[in-house]
Amino acid sequence: MPSQKQLDDWFYKRKTHKQSLSAALLFPALISGNRGALSSAITLVESQVSEDRKEANKLIKSCSDLNKKAWRIGITGVPGVGKSTFIDAFGKIILEKGLKLAVLAIDPSSNVSGGSILGDKTRMPWLSQQENVFIRPSATRNNLGGVALNTREAILLCEAAGFDIIFIETVGVGQSETVVHSMVDFFLLLMLSGAGDELQGIKRGIMEMADLLVITKADGDNLQNAKNARSQYANALHLFPSKPSTWTTQALISSSVSGVGLHEVLEATENYFNKIVLSAWLDENRRLQEITLLKECLSNLLKQDFFGNNKWKNKFLIAEQKVANGKLSAFIAAEQLFKEFNLRKI
Amino acid sequence: MPSQKQLDDWFYKRKTHKQSLSAALLFPALISGNRGALSSAITLVESQVSEDRKEANKLIKSCSDLNKKAWRIGITGVPGVGKSTFIDAFGKIILEKGLKLAVLAIDPSSNVSGGSILGDKTRMPWLSQQENVFIRPSATRNNLGGVALNTREAILLCEAAGFDIIFIETVGVGQSETVVHSMVDFFLLLMLSGAGDELQGIKRGIMEMADLLVITKADGDNLQNAKNARSQYANALHLFPSKPSTWTTQALISSSVSGVGLHEVLEATENYFNKIVLSAWLDENRRLQEITLLKECLSNLLKQDFFGNNKWKNKFLIAEQKVANGKLSAFIAAEQLFKEFNLRKI
Repeated sequence: MPSQKQLDDWFYKRKTHKQSLSAALLFPALISGNRGALSSAITLVESQVSEDRKEANKLIKSCSDLNKKAWRIGITGVPGVGKSTFIDAFGKIILEKGLKLAVLAIDPSSNVSGGSILGDKTRMPWLSQQENVFIRPSATRNNLGGVALNTREAILLCEAAGFDIIFIETVGVGQSETVVHSMVDFFLLLMLSGAGDELQGIKRGIMEMADLLVITKADGDNLQNAKNARSQYANALHLFPSKPSTWTTQALISSSVSGVGLHEVLEATENYFNKIVLSAWLDENRRLQEITLLKECLSNLLKQDFFGNNKWKNKFLIAEQKVANGKLSAFIAAEQLFKEFNLRKI
Repeated sequence: MPSQKQLDDWFYKRKTHKQSLSAALLFPALISGNRGALSSAITLVESQVSEDRKEANKLIKSCSDLNKKAWRIGITGVPGVGKSTFIDAFGKIILEKGLKLAVLAIDPSSNVSGGSILGDKTRMPWLSQQENVFIRPSATRNNLGGVALNTREAILLCEAAGFDIIFIETVGVGQSETVVHSMVDFFLLLMLSGAGDELQGIKRGIMEMADLLVITKADGDNLQNAKNARSQYANALHLFPSKPSTWTTQALISSSVSGVGLHEVLEATENYFNKIVLSAWLDENRRLQEITLLKECLSNLLKQDFFGNNKWKNKFLIAEQKVANGKLSAFIAAEQLFKEFNLRKI
């Protein structure tokens, strides 16, 4: 049997030579836990090429038939809260338990700025070198809706590859939290002490989604601040409406430097999953998420049928120019494009 | 020439007998300012029937060729802020200037609760009886995206009918403000004194969109509170980033009972429009809005092609049931539906 390293190299070569991959080839390597295969599989589902999409669908079908379940954990917080170092340090605790960890990212700002979630090696220096860890930065070539669907599929692939825990991380800037919340079992919000909620750009709605608040950087001079902030948040959390999971959101502190609080974070996470497995909320919630996903997927396919095709995309750009110059109203332009598109097959 | 009342009755009868209306019939009556024709025209553009849609497109084309421009003003605020009484009282000031006013509503809660924006007669008792006023409650049969497009078209129709000012009002509960903001020139946020921002459910993002904050109910014992709140908001507004319009958001007080502040609100509105007409931001902003609208319209048409058809909607419901029972994954179900839908025409 070839080593993990050899397999990684083999898949990497295929990828760099842009050879298309078949589901039949990928699936066995994927379920054996091969990271190169997982990486290639995610590239396959992200591909806009229609033959790739066919293979991707086969692969997704095989993976969802496996019905493997990992803990899907959303992690968010504003830039500067220490998300990467938290994941690096918290990931260590998870690996010590003998679990396999995957880290996926959704980055809505990546379209504009080229990505505020950086490459994995610089961000998570320790984690990125571990055998039982898979880290994948956000797909950037798509809109938020497209990235969300890709990430959903990536979760399925990670589960098929035998990962026990999957982090889906995002920057705390608004829309993307809702997207992440719609695909995870547990939602973890990292916060800074000292800064007011407003300054942190954290909206009330995001705090309401959280299952666990963790005040980061609880070390040195900042330890007492963090403890004070935890008490304040703990009090505030009592005022929030109760959750359908019946879980009561907690506030904890943590330090990625000293390691303070990280075991408590894992303990709270375990308590949560024990509770929702027992109450069957885990399955119920995923069922509800799947129903929402169905409509999203279909809407996306219907839109992609047009926007994913270069010929029609070009026609769209021409129409956009006319609208921008005031030569055509948006309504009329849209109707014309739609009509032309709909007639194409007859 | 028949009276306004006779024309109103005539259009009302056609509407109640569900006779379909042609663009050729509606257009001349519409541009003469007939309110019955305007009402019928809005009903036409809201219709899901495909023949109606054809006529609606002709009508929209004729109206956008006219290139008439009204002041498009978004008005929002949480339930209880006194939106209806404000519009009733502020509308009076506008009518006194000899202007014609249309009031349209977007109500995202209407799908669920049956509508929190009530009928016009109870809400705006004075305004609803005036000759130069047109009030139209929200279309309820559609999703927020659909309602938004309908409202956009309704704005065009109101402009064609010669209205000078169009209010687009919505309840301050989240998503719909962004939608309204994307179709107006000026965004007015009503606020209560005393209640904290959090209690009012007003998110920072909504305050940032506002061009004018108005503290309502500035009368009796509450007058001093309102003045204090105005000062506080005025200070807070300094901290906000500057707007592309280069306009500085102001905070004012108003009372719909005593009439305090209403003239100042109109004055600020006039100043704003004078400024943005001069700087050409009015046109630039509308151009940007049109470009966004083009993509929204087209996406909506592509989705409606499926979801607007009963046969396919039923197939969707069956698939949804299978997904809910765990018999099918959302991805696979979506792919299958899409494939079948795409093959239908070949």
